[in-house]
Amino acid sequence: MMILHQMQMSGNCYKARLASRQLAKPITLKDYPLHGGKTREPEYLAKNPNGRVPMLELDDGRCLPESGAILWFLTNGSDLQPSDDWGKAQALQWMFFEQYSHEPYIAVARFWLSYAPKEALEQKRALIPEWHARGNAALSVMETHLSRNDWFAGGAYSLADIALYGYTHCADEGGFELSRYKAVTAWLKRVAAQPRHVRLDENW
Amino acid sequence: MMILHQMQMSGNCYKARLASRQLAKPITLKDYPLHGGKTREPEYLAKNPNGRVPMLELDDGRCLPESGAILWFLTNGSDLQPSDDWGKAQALQWMFFEQYSHEPYIAVARFWLSYAPKEALEQKRALIPEWHARGNAALSVMETHLSRNDWFAGGAYSLADIALYGYTHCADEGGFELSRYKAVTAWLKRVAAQPRHVRLDENW
Repeated sequence: MMILHQMQMSGNCYKARLASRQLAKPITLKDYPLHGGKTREPEYLAKNPNGRVPMLELDDGRCLPESGAILWFLTNGSDLQPSDDWGKAQALQWMFFEQYSHEPYIAVARFWLSYAPKEALEQKRALIPEWHARGNAALSVMETHLSRNDWFAGGAYSLADIALYGYTHCADEGGFELSRYKAVTAWLKRVAAQPRHVRLDENW
Repeated sequence: MMILHQMQMSGNCYKARLASRQLAKPITLKDYPLHGGKTREPEYLAKNPNGRVPMLELDDGRCLPESGAILWFLTNGSDLQPSDDWGKAQALQWMFFEQYSHEPYIAVARFWLSYAPKEALEQKRALIPEWHARGNAALSVMETHLSRNDWFAGGAYSLADIALYGYTHCADEGGFELSRYKAVTAWLKRVAAQPRHVRLDENW
């Protein structure tokens, strides 16, 4: 069975759990503690030199890091991935948007405000206004899209929605007011109502 | 003919130019100045609410932002994209790595050190050590991979190499010493020797 190397609270890891659950593709979870640097030790670095979770390990030992690549690999050929070239390109557009313009502010604010030791947060406090400005800019881009579309790519629920749901649905833990974004809030409810949905705090 | 909305010095835009040149897919370039905020004005935001270049505009007016999505769309079905699922997943792995762990440090250092007004750089100077530490970490991950592989995905030159070449080949403009990375330096030469290669400072 495939192994997902993961941290339970990570939205990036949650994306892979949610997709595998909805596709009924069973995976074994191998958990790492949030703190302590286990993914920067030689045994892990031999599998992923970038030292990050999630990483999907196949039965034959091949390893695939990066949540976006894992989502693509898991959903390939399924209803969770648009079947046409333009739909696939749109899905990737939103997945790259998420990793570049959304996650570095929303996920990072969530980590430092809700999961890091308090004394460590103090050293980061000056960065909070920029995280919030850029994170709100990303939420506004999503709001613009969702005010005209139910889903992000291909006209249906897909891996792009999973990628954006990962850290958007818990953005309040980073100090973001999701109630300001009506279309985003309605989309969050649509995603959570999909068959076989699983919450971030649930295992597979 | 497709239009690439772009800035000439942007490595992200260069990726799309290089792929279109090597695939002999002609595109019209629409240039925006590096400074001045033209991509944050309403006319541009109507096409890309995220206000960034590159953006590919198709003949029928559909618009695709994000360099990774554009690379995917342009190379789809060509020799520049691995044909098997695992090769595609590996290409995406490295493209997400580039946008998350590489570009935000190497491209950002290059912008501020070589292209921003000097007085603006002064406000960013305290961030340079972190850009260099994280950028060098990304170059080390590339070095590890390239010490065992000629290319990043699928065993051949592909869109993943183009994605990583975009800002790696000009990392010296961000204060990085590429000569420290022997395998990366050798790979840069292999990429530049590919048929129909075009330099960043050349047009299509």
